[in-house]
Amino acid sequence: MPGNTFGTLFQLTTFGESHGAAVGGIVDGCPAGLDLATEDLQRALDKRKPGQGGATTSRREADTVHILSGVFEGKTTGTPIAFQVINENQHSADYDNLKNLFRPGHADYGFFQKFGLRDHRGGGRSSGRETIARVAAGAIADVLLAASGIYVYAACEELGGIPVRSLEMEHAFDRPYFSADESVIPLWDERVQAARKDMDTLGGITRVEIRGVPAGLGEPVFEKLDARLAYALMGVGAVKGVEIGDGFAAARATGSSNNDPILPGGRFASNHAGGILGGISSGQDIVVRCAVKPIPSVPRKQDTIDTEGHAATVQVGGRHDLAAIPRCIPVHRAMCSLVVADMLLMQRRMGRGDGAYRQF
Amino acid sequence: MPGNTFGTLFQLTTFGESHGAAVGGIVDGCPAGLDLATEDLQRALDKRKPGQGGATTSRREADTVHILSGVFEGKTTGTPIAFQVINENQHSADYDNLKNLFRPGHADYGFFQKFGLRDHRGGGRSSGRETIARVAAGAIADVLLAASGIYVYAACEELGGIPVRSLEMEHAFDRPYFSADESVIPLWDERVQAARKDMDTLGGITRVEIRGVPAGLGEPVFEKLDARLAYALMGVGAVKGVEIGDGFAAARATGSSNNDPILPGGRFASNHAGGILGGISSGQDIVVRCAVKPIPSVPRKQDTIDTEGHAATVQVGGRHDLAAIPRCIPVHRAMCSLVVADMLLMQRRMGRGDGAYRQF
Amino acid sequence: MPGNTFGTLFQLTTFGESHGAAVGGIVDGCPAGLDLATEDLQRALDKRKPGQGGATTSRREADTVHILSGVFEGKTTGTPIAFQVINENQHSADYDNLKNLFRPGHADYGFFQKFGLRDHRGGGRSSGRETIARVAAGAIADVLLAASGIYVYAACEELGGIPVRSLEMEHAFDRPYFSADESVIPLWDERVQAARKDMDTLGGITRVEIRGVPAGLGEPVFEKLDARLAYALMGVGAVKGVEIGDGFAAARATGSSNNDPILPGGRFASNHAGGILGGISSGQDIVVRCAVKPIPSVPRKQDTIDTEGHAATVQVGGRHDLAAIPRCIPVHRAMCSLVVADMLLMQRRMGRGDGAYRQF
Amino acid sequence: MPGNTFGTLFQLTTFGESHGAAVGGIVDGCPAGLDLATEDLQRALDKRKPGQGGATTSRREADTVHILSGVFEGKTTGTPIAFQVINENQHSADYDNLKNLFRPGHADYGFFQKFGLRDHRGGGRSSGRETIARVAAGAIADVLLAASGIYVYAACEELGGIPVRSLEMEHAFDRPYFSADESVIPLWDERVQAARKDMDTLGGITRVEIRGVPAGLGEPVFEKLDARLAYALMGVGAVKGVEIGDGFAAARATGSSNNDPILPGGRFASNHAGGILGGISSGQDIVVRCAVKPIPSVPRKQDTIDTEGHAATVQVGGRHDLAAIPRCIPVHRAMCSLVVADMLLMQRRMGRGDGAYRQF
Repeated sequence: MPGNTFGTLFQLTTFGESHGAAVGGIVDGCPAGLDLATEDLQRALDKRKPGQGGATTSRREADTVHILSGVFEGKTTGTPIAFQVINENQHSADYDNLKNLFRPGHADYGFFQKFGLRDHRGGGRSSGRETIARVAAGAIADVLLAASGIYVYAACEELGGIPVRSLEMEHAFDRPYFSADESVIPLWDERVQAARKDMDTLGGITRVEIRGVPAGLGEPVFEKLDARLAYALMGVGAVKGVEIGDGFAAARATGSSNNDPILPGGRFASNHAGGILGGISSGQDIVVRCAVKPIPSVPRKQDTIDTEGHAATVQVGGRHDLAAIPRCIPVHRAMCSLVVADMLLMQRRMGRGDGAYRQF
Repeated sequence: MPGNTFGTLFQLTTFGESHGAAVGGIVDGCPAGLDLATEDLQRALDKRKPGQGGATTSRREADTVHILSGVFEGKTTGTPIAFQVINENQHSADYDNLKNLFRPGHADYGFFQKFGLRDHRGGGRSSGRETIARVAAGAIADVLLAASGIYVYAACEELGGIPVRSLEMEHAFDRPYFSADESVIPLWDERVQAARKDMDTLGGITRVEIRGVPAGLGEPVFEKLDARLAYALMGVGAVKGVEIGDGFAAARATGSSNNDPILPGGRFASNHAGGILGGISSGQDIVVRCAVKPIPSVPRKQDTIDTEGHAATVQVGGRHDLAAIPRCIPVHRAMCSLVVADMLLMQRRMGRGDGAYRQF
Repeated sequence: MPGNTFGTLFQLTTFGESHGAAVGGIVDGCPAGLDLATEDLQRALDKRKPGQGGATTSRREADTVHILSGVFEGKTTGTPIAFQVINENQHSADYDNLKNLFRPGHADYGFFQKFGLRDHRGGGRSSGRETIARVAAGAIADVLLAASGIYVYAACEELGGIPVRSLEMEHAFDRPYFSADESVIPLWDERVQAARKDMDTLGGITRVEIRGVPAGLGEPVFEKLDARLAYALMGVGAVKGVEIGDGFAAARATGSSNNDPILPGGRFASNHAGGILGGISSGQDIVVRCAVKPIPSVPRKQDTIDTEGHAATVQVGGRHDLAAIPRCIPVHRAMCSLVVADMLLMQRRMGRGDGAYRQF
Repeated sequence: MPGNTFGTLFQLTTFGESHGAAVGGIVDGCPAGLDLATEDLQRALDKRKPGQGGATTSRREADTVHILSGVFEGKTTGTPIAFQVINENQHSADYDNLKNLFRPGHADYGFFQKFGLRDHRGGGRSSGRETIARVAAGAIADVLLAASGIYVYAACEELGGIPVRSLEMEHAFDRPYFSADESVIPLWDERVQAARKDMDTLGGITRVEIRGVPAGLGEPVFEKLDARLAYALMGVGAVKGVEIGDGFAAARATGSSNNDPILPGGRFASNHAGGILGGISSGQDIVVRCAVKPIPSVPRKQDTIDTEGHAATVQVGGRHDLAAIPRCIPVHRAMCSLVVADMLLMQRRMGRGDGAYRQF
C-alpha cells in the first residue's frame, strides 16, 4: 500500500497539505452501534491546538472538524467515517522565500528527492497539520476502546533535558505541556524562555500509558503489539526513538532483575516489560516512551542548498512552535489508540471473548 | 493480515515452531533475473549459529537451508522463493517440566492468553528459531540491494553495560560478538563469565548502518522509512527500544546543534538524523540502534503461575544463550535489509530511476 | 482490510451515504508530476449523471466535485488526492416509509444483518451514489493510463434482451445508453417504454475494452489481471456475471478453435482470450463483459418483512432509474481503469520499462 | 502485495513450480483449537488427482502432503500452518522442445513478457500443480467452516456443451466428472472419446453451492462477498466467466421476476440472487458458476513464435488432460471455502455472534 493508510481492521486513510483546501481522513472498519458525536473529535483536536503551555506558536487555528459519513442518528453505522478540517488562516506568502530551498532537518529535501516536486507552502504534506487526521481518528478509536474498558494516557516526561520527578498520568492532559509532574512546569517555562532568547528550539520525551488492555493483543511474529506501537510512533514527525517498558535501560539490566515474576490472578510483581511479553499484551499497563527531537525551524541562518543544488542559506520565519512538545502529545496518544483498537479487532476475529482469560 | 507476513512488495511470510518439523518462509515479490544460490542463504544462516563469541549456547545446530521454488538455472524467476530448514537435534523432553508453567519474561503467558493453548516445546512459535526465516529472507533481499549498491552493516555496540570505544562497522561481522570494536572483546568475555557465575544473563545494544541507500525511499505519512525500521526491529524478540540517528540524545539537544546542514552535491555536514528526514532517506548512511534486553532464561528459581493460575516456581534448564547478542545481530541486519528492499521496490513504482536525484 | 479500500499501489478509499453530508474518496499512490485538473474528474462524473438515454431518473444531480489535496499548480504531487461531492437535492422523507422494511433485491436486508442497524435514507452506503467516488478516481487513473498510451472504452452491448449488432466502442460514450451500436437505440427506447408501462425494470450487458495495455500486467497466481477485473466489476452494484474474452462461450468451444495463434511481432490471429493469458496481459485488447440485473426498485407491491421479522409489503416510490444501464457504464469503465493503473504500477516495481518486451 | 497471497484474515500464501522441488503454502490466521489432521488435507488432494472420470491424464501423481507447522497434538495452535507436497514423477525432458516456444492459449507468453525469463518445465509456476496449495488450504478452511455449520458443494454442470438435467450437489463429489447428474455421464464419456479422436479438447461449466452461510458476510463496497468469489474463481486457470445466482440470465430478466420476495424467518421465496444481496450473504444458499475454457494443449500443430519473435509451430506432447474438468472442480470448491472462511473471520471482528440475526 502507498503510505497514507494505517491499520488492518481499524483503518485510517488520511489526506491534506498544510496550505491546501483541507486536511482529513477516513476511518474504515469501526464497528457499528457505537455512540459517536462530532464533539468527540473536536474535543481531541482542541487538545492539539496551540496554547497548552509556553512552547507553542501564537497562530490561531480554529480547526473545526466535520463528520461527513458513517454516523446516523448518533451511532456509527459500520461504514466509513470521513471527517475533515477546512484549512483557514493560511499565510502561504510566508513561505515564498522557501520555495526553492531545503530547510535543514525538515522533510523538504526528502520529499523533493522522492517526488521530484513538492508543495512547499507550510511544509505541504509534511506539515504537522497532517496530524489533525491522526488525532481525530484517535478520538474515534477511543470510543471503541472505552467500550472495552481501555484508556490511553499521555504526558510529557522530559523537556529540554529536564525530566519530571513524578508520574501523574491521569492529570497530565489538564496541565501546561501535558506535564506528568506539576512541580516541574516552572523549570520548563524557564528553559523555554532561555531557548527563545537563544533563538533555539528544544526536544523532549513523551510517555504513553495504556490501561485496561486485555491480555492477548498482538499478532506474532511481525505484527506484535510492540512492533506496531513502535511503527505508529516512529512515524510521527520528530520522533527519533521509541522504548517499550524499561527500553534502553533494559539493555543494561540483568535477566534476574529484568524479569517480571508472575503472580496468581495474572498479576505481575513488576512491569519492566511495559505490559508486553513476546509481542502480546500481558494485561499489565502498557508503557511507551518517545524521544522527540528539537524542532528544526530555528530562527537562525543555516547552510543548505537550493533545488538546483547550489549552496544557499535559509532563515525560517513564520509562526513556529519552539518544541514539538506539547502539541505532539495528543498525536502520540492517538497513534497508540489506533494501534490498540486495531489489535483489539484483530483478536476478536478469533471468536474468543475480549480478555476471556484475564482471570484465573 | 495475520501477523506472519512482512512487507508490501518484497514480502516475507514465515512459519515454524522450535520443535515442529521445519522452519522456513516464502519470499514473494523478488524481481526476476537476480543471481541467487542456496549458498547465499546458508552463509547468512551460518552467521546466526552459535559460536560467534562466548555468550552463546553449546547446542549444535546444522540449520541446512533448502530452496524449494522461485529459482531456475541460478536466477530468480519472479515467482515465490520458498525455503526451509528441517528441525533436527531437538530435545523436546527438556521442556516437559515447562508444559504447564509460564516462564517469566517469556512469551509463554501471552501466547496462552491469545490462543488458549500453545506448543510449549522450546517456546514453539515464540522460539528464536523463527528468526531463521528472517535471516534467510534477508539474504535474498541483500542480493537485490547489492545490485543497487546498497549494503547493510550490523554490529554489537554495547554488552552488559560495557560500550565499544570505536565503530568499525565493516569488520564487525568477522569478530566475536560481531563487535564494532576489537579492543572491547576481552572486557565482554569477562562480563559474560561473571554473569554465568552469577547464574544471570545480559543485555546490550546493537547497531545497524545501511550505506548506499538512494535519497527518496520511504512512504509518508505512515510508511516512513524510520517507522518501518522501528516496526521491523521492535518486532524481533528481546528488543525493547529503537533509535534512529541520535535517538534519545536528540531529545536533549537543541535545534541549532541537531540540524544537519545540507551541502552541495546532496551531502550533509553531519548526520544526527541518521539518514532519514521526514521519514524519507536523504542519501546519508542510515543509522539504527536497538536495546536488547537480557535473556529471561536465567538458571534460577523464579516465581510464576501454572496454566490453572496457581502459584508455582520455575527453573529453566536446557541449553540456553546467555545473551541474545550476538545471535540477534544477523536478525537485526536482515530485518533492515527486508525493509530497504521493500521501500526500494515501492519507490520504483514511481517510474523514476533509482537515486535519480542523488547528484546535483 | 475493511471493505472500502481498492487497489494495492494505486489505491482508492471511499466514503459516503446517499443522504449524508457528502460522498468522496482518497486516491493514494498516484505518481507525482501528472497534469490533473478538477475538470478531469467533473467530465467523468457528468457522464454518470442522468440524461444519457431514456432509462434514467428525472432527478437533477449537480454532483460538483472538489479536489481537496494532492494537486499543486496543476500537477499531482504524489500525496493523497482527496475529492468530494456535497450531497444536495436530497429528499430523505421519500424514504421514511422504508425505514423498517427491507426492499426485495436490495442491500437493505444484508446491511441490517451485517451491522444490526442501517442508514435507510436512499439506501445509505449501498446507494448508487457511492459510485461517484469510483468514477472520480477512475478519471485520475485515466490520466496515468493516458500517459502510458492506454485507453479504456465502455459501452452497452445489450438492453432488455436486445443485443447490439455492431461494436463501435469509440463512439459509444457520445450516444444514448452509451450504445455500441447506433441502430439499436430506437429498439431500446421502445423496450424501455414498454417496461415503464408494465411497471417493471430491465437489465442488460455492458462491455469494456482496454486498448494499449502492454504485455506483462497481472500478478499470478492470485492477483491475475482477469481476477482483479472480475473482482472490480462483480463488486459494482447489480452485476451478476463477468466474462473475459469469449467467457461462457469458451466453455462450449474446443481447444483447437479457442486458442489464439501467436504471430511474429507479438500479434495474435484472434482474441478469444480477451487479451489475457495465464492472468497476464498479452498486449491484445482486453475485453470484459458484465451481466447487469434489472433494478430491483419496481413500482409494484412486493412481499417482504420488516425489521421485526413480520410479513409486510413494500412499494418503492421515489425517483428511480429503470435500468442500471446506462448509468453504471462509466462506473464499469472506471473500475477497469483503476485495475489497470494499479497493475501498471505493480509491474513498474520490477524496474523494467513499461512494455519493454512488446516488440520482437 | 505481490500476487501469491490470498485473503485478509484467513490468509494463504503459496509457492512452487511444476518441476521444482515442491509445491505448497502457508495458511496464516487459522483460529486456534480446531481439530486438524494431515488426512484432512490428503483427502481433499486425492479428489484433485487424475482418475475422477474419462477426461483426465494417465499421469500417476502421489501428491502426498506434509504439514510442517501450526498443529500441535492434533489441534491448530493459531500459528501459521505450512504444508507441502514434494514433486515426484517429473518428466522435465518432455518439455525440452518447448523451451523457446510459446504454447498458444497458455501462460508461456505472458510470463515471459512479465519476467523476461521463465521456468518452462511443465509450465513452471503457471502449471496446474500450483492448485495443490489451493486445495490443501481449502481443506483447512473447511474445518473452520464445518465448525460453523457451513458446507461447500461443487459439481460439473456442463461438459463439451452437454448440460446436466438435474442438480444433485450432495452426490457429485463421488461421481465421475463430479457430475451433478448421474444420467449425463455416458453422454459425457462419448463426448470425451470423440474429442480425443479429433485430437481436440473440451470446456465446461462448474457449479459451487455454499450452504449454511450466515447472513451478514461480505464487506461493502469493495470486498463484497460476490466480488471476492469472482476474484477467487477468475484467478483459477482456464476460468473465463463467473456468475452469481442467475448471472447472465438476470440481464435478460425483468425486475419483477428477478427479485426474491422476503418471507418471515429470513427465508426467501426464490433465489435468483444466488444468496448475495448488496454484496452481503442473505442466509440463502450461495450459488456460483464458472465457465472453463477447453485446455489449450491440443495435440495438433499450432502457429506460434519463439522467444526471439520468429514464426514457429508447436505441437504439445506429454501427458495432458483433455479438459480442466473435473480436476479443476476441487480447486473451485477450495477457493470458495477460502473466501467464506475469510469473510467469516472478518465478520467476527465486529464482535457479534455468527449469524446472530439469522432468526427473527
